[in-house]
Amino acid sequence: MNTRQLSELAQQLRVDSVRAAAAAGSGHPTSSMSAADLMAVLLAHHMRYDFDRPAHPGNDRFVLSKGHASPLLYAAYKAAGAINDTELLTFRRLGSRLEGHPTPRRLPWVETATGSLGQGLPVGVGIALAGKRLDRTGYRVWVLCGDSELAEGSIWEAAEHAGYEHLDNLIAIVDVNRLGQRGPTRHGHDLRAYARRFQAFGWHTVEIDGHDVDAVDHAYDEALSTAGQPTAILARTLKGKGVASVQDREGLHGKPLPDPEEAIAELGGVRHLRVEVPHPAAARMLHPAGSGHAELPRYRTGDEVATRDAYGKALAALGTARGDVVALDGEVSDSTRSEFFAKEHPDRFFECYIAEQQLVATSVGMATRGWVPYASTFAAFLTRAYDFVRMASIGGAGINLVGSHAGVAIGQDGPSQMGLEDLAMFRTVYGSTVLYPCDANQTAKLVAEMAGLDGIRYLRTSRGATPVIYSATEEFPIGGSKVLRASGEDRLTVVAAGVTLHEALAAADALDREGIRVRVIDLYSVKPVDRRTLREAAETTGCLLTVEDHREEGGIGDAVLDAFADGHPVPRVVRLAVRTMPGSATPAEQLHAAGIDAGSIAAAARALVETVVVR
Amino acid sequence: MNTRQLSELAQQLRVDSVRAAAAAGSGHPTSSMSAADLMAVLLAHHMRYDFDRPAHPGNDRFVLSKGHASPLLYAAYKAAGAINDTELLTFRRLGSRLEGHPTPRRLPWVETATGSLGQGLPVGVGIALAGKRLDRTGYRVWVLCGDSELAEGSIWEAAEHAGYEHLDNLIAIVDVNRLGQRGPTRHGHDLRAYARRFQAFGWHTVEIDGHDVDAVDHAYDEALSTAGQPTAILARTLKGKGVASVQDREGLHGKPLPDPEEAIAELGGVRHLRVEVPHPAAARMLHPAGSGHAELPRYRTGDEVATRDAYGKALAALGTARGDVVALDGEVSDSTRSEFFAKEHPDRFFECYIAEQQLVATSVGMATRGWVPYASTFAAFLTRAYDFVRMASIGGAGINLVGSHAGVAIGQDGPSQMGLEDLAMFRTVYGSTVLYPCDANQTAKLVAEMAGLDGIRYLRTSRGATPVIYSATEEFPIGGSKVLRASGEDRLTVVAAGVTLHEALAAADALDREGIRVRVIDLYSVKPVDRRTLREAAETTGCLLTVEDHREEGGIGDAVLDAFADGHPVPRVVRLAVRTMPGSATPAEQLHAAGIDAGSIAAAARALVETVVVR
Repeated sequence: MNTRQLSELAQQLRVDSVRAAAAAGSGHPTSSMSAADLMAVLLAHHMRYDFDRPAHPGNDRFVLSKGHASPLLYAAYKAAGAINDTELLTFRRLGSRLEGHPTPRRLPWVETATGSLGQGLPVGVGIALAGKRLDRTGYRVWVLCGDSELAEGSIWEAAEHAGYEHLDNLIAIVDVNRLGQRGPTRHGHDLRAYARRFQAFGWHTVEIDGHDVDAVDHAYDEALSTAGQPTAILARTLKGKGVASVQDREGLHGKPLPDPEEAIAELGGVRHLRVEVPHPAAARMLHPAGSGHAELPRYRTGDEVATRDAYGKALAALGTARGDVVALDGEVSDSTRSEFFAKEHPDRFFECYIAEQQLVATSVGMATRGWVPYASTFAAFLTRAYDFVRMASIGGAGINLVGSHAGVAIGQDGPSQMGLEDLAMFRTVYGSTVLYPCDANQTAKLVAEMAGLDGIRYLRTSRGATPVIYSATEEFPIGGSKVLRASGEDRLTVVAAGVTLHEALAAADALDREGIRVRVIDLYSVKPVDRRTLREAAETTGCLLTVEDHREEGGIGDAVLDAFADGHPVPRVVRLAVRTMPGSATPAEQLHAAGIDAGSIAAAARALVETVVVR
Repeated sequence: MNTRQLSELAQQLRVDSVRAAAAAGSGHPTSSMSAADLMAVLLAHHMRYDFDRPAHPGNDRFVLSKGHASPLLYAAYKAAGAINDTELLTFRRLGSRLEGHPTPRRLPWVETATGSLGQGLPVGVGIALAGKRLDRTGYRVWVLCGDSELAEGSIWEAAEHAGYEHLDNLIAIVDVNRLGQRGPTRHGHDLRAYARRFQAFGWHTVEIDGHDVDAVDHAYDEALSTAGQPTAILARTLKGKGVASVQDREGLHGKPLPDPEEAIAELGGVRHLRVEVPHPAAARMLHPAGSGHAELPRYRTGDEVATRDAYGKALAALGTARGDVVALDGEVSDSTRSEFFAKEHPDRFFECYIAEQQLVATSVGMATRGWVPYASTFAAFLTRAYDFVRMASIGGAGINLVGSHAGVAIGQDGPSQMGLEDLAMFRTVYGSTVLYPCDANQTAKLVAEMAGLDGIRYLRTSRGATPVIYSATEEFPIGGSKVLRASGEDRLTVVAAGVTLHEALAAADALDREGIRVRVIDLYSVKPVDRRTLREAAETTGCLLTVEDHREEGGIGDAVLDAFADGHPVPRVVRLAVRTMPGSATPAEQLHAAGIDAGSIAAAARALVETVVVR
């Protein structure tokens, strides 16, 4: 296309953005209009993409980091012939694929859910890294960013990661329109300010007038001819460009234009140009399907093994069986034990350094390309990436997250290193699976099972060694549990998992010596929870005592109550959990101080049995 | 002190770090030894601090961002005479003030809890901002950072914020010892790499040999004489400096030295030098005590007002009554309505732009100086700062966090903008208070009450207008609830809050017309929860129906069950919550699709009443 045609296409994208928002009665047309020229040139000349085959291994990947500019994206889909004008005007309606912020759940051409700012570039880095080091099919990753979102630290985590990894297949296009939601950004139209920052992180930068289509065209050429570095194109633009009444004006963020008809006329009226998006070269994915059967390590019952060790070894074995498994870590692989995988499969291990948001974002990016990521760090530090986990679930990304050093049981390091909120955090995530093994064989089985699940899968591991109580042949279905102690005279049921499961068994044995029989359930699958077994235990024993190395809210206790939150008769429930702020102490001292050790469990059980008797 | 004396002091800090870790059998001596010279010179010549009066308004503030180097900090306290040698050797023991990572809960000289990397500098920025724009008592803020933690995006959020605010009272001392936990950092000893980054964000930088005490001395002088910019001192150091067997070696992170006695001998033996830390000049805090009685806005029952509007107006009124109240926002003050405060009290409003981690960190920093911060953004985006909230609770910081645009009720913008995990996230935080008002008068009262609470206080507000149902004279005690419908024939109790409370009332009225009486409870205080009222309702009506615009885990449903998790007989409970992934739709369509609107509540109630009858 020549200059005039490119500008015409850009005007069409503006007009269609205005029309979509007008039809919806909401949306962000002005944020779309500023980036219309950037999008038009990309679509017409540089992006290689087959809209009929979104899964084509050679397709470039486009991420709309400024997800609120969705009208521009959908207008581009229309120009490319992917959707028609009628669908464009269903924007933001109930049941429409065209949501306020784009998600891959609904649209095959969307790589990742955006809308929480500062996440598109980090995920784009993950995709570009997959392209460079795993897929090698030559695709490029284009990320359209807003200028406001450059205030997010996650953008600079991503910039650091991309610069260090020399991702020259990554191009960040920054729509510097000077205006955020509330008002002017920190740096306004000072392109240099942004260029200095990207350059400092090892990026090549190009500064242009984002409304000069020829300059945009050349900038993309320069980016594609830049080797060894990612490129950031800093484009000076005007919010609401093309319509005098809104152009470069404050107070108009996220609002349809006041007079759409007049605006459309000012923009030259409705057009129906069709752009031929260049197709990718033939290519095929390199990674094999994940079908191999893993020869998991087997542990002898009675041996003492930390579940984090079992995790690392099982993951290494899984990596041998499945070529599509990759591992990532936040610079603590010697603690999470993902180092075992790294040693055996260095080509599929990705060090993300101390940057948990990028750790999760890289996983999401790789998952979009069909890889099966296992990302690990301390459970406590996964709280750093909660918004990324939330957005990953919105986008339907399938990722495995593994948090080590769970609970007060870590001992002397103290509360900053203790995962005490992780079960609640992950249980609340839509469609998540939450697993908490207590021994090495159980851990190994669950690590392998996780790979086949959908959505966010979380595995919680422990620092200290615990005895192996299950044989290597035992199976642990997701949504199941194990009844480890049961008799006809059970007076109550203790429900525990992980570290506290062993405390519960010790308590049960002590109580047994006193003639008090209690049932013990290993709730290794915290979500989904085994309703049937819990209900049966409640009916037969009348009382449930839950014990967890976690805060009292949102963890195992609440998971157990979930089994009764549908009107089903509820038993008496007593919850033991971490209710104080721990300091430094030995693991045993910590469990005792928190009231979740064997002695505390036995004492609580005795009190409950007595009150039952009294009644 | 002269060069020799400074080096002697540094050696003492090394020796005491080795001794503390040896006594504890754990800890991070090598990470302490690299920074010993930096600490010695700071303590002896530059830091102005009265250890007998940690609350002295003129005291400089020191933050150990690399919190794991706590042995160095405690060794410094001993050298300053704040603790004795006996206490130093209680490091990491049960009951000791000297935790694995320092917290202000235990030690009066610690400003903020650290141990999750990348958080000390952001909080330091908050303290420095308070010093510049609020306290104006001339104190400086010294933050000792590790090099590994510079991979955290939060560090660059902080760098951006500090550079933009020209915080020349802030000095970041970076202990570039080349080695992280697992191994080498990205940039090793390349000081220039870090200098480029800080300079790009507007900082002055100084590169030195961190073991040359004279160079360190001059670097601090240069930092203090730098106007209009924060300074980053990039110090080349060696991990484990001074002990050949561990110096600059990998695999020794977080471990006591193999042979402490030999190491101490190599370091010149145990010393008992005492350093005279320079005292601050006389100064007094400018802000008045928070005693004023707020003239809160009053709303007429029946009027339609969004609780976010009521929040903004109440906060502005509170700011008029209390000179110690400050407000912060993540560049969405026009949506959260903190703009009302900003307009009336511009000198106490802080724009943090789209950087939620820095938003919370700035609040924590200001809280350490006695200010009462209210920080607001979309509830969904507070998930971005969960690790900061977690650490704030560990440090005992008193901050108010306000999340707007809660739940599916926001409508067309879609899931990325919906706070659906916030109640669970904040309920799980130690010592937190979680409030969720349904009308304007209730919101105003709660906003004022929050100021006087301890710990993390969270207020959830809604986007759309809701009818005012309470008179302006009604009181809403924390931990209370309101019974809005009750009769002798109540067949069940509906528990709701915020948006769903109004749906519950509509459902109750519809059911009433059918002759089905239901009790309705407004659970505005989600944590702490009103056990007494919930139990009484359970006993008299036999069944609880909870309804929330939140995920089913960790929210109102679980809060209600908490009232029965101590062995108290539990009623039948049915939970209505958001179980699907919403798309774009109108608020009414969203509430209906999620099954939490009046119609859904009435239908669930009918079904329950019938099953009760059947039994």
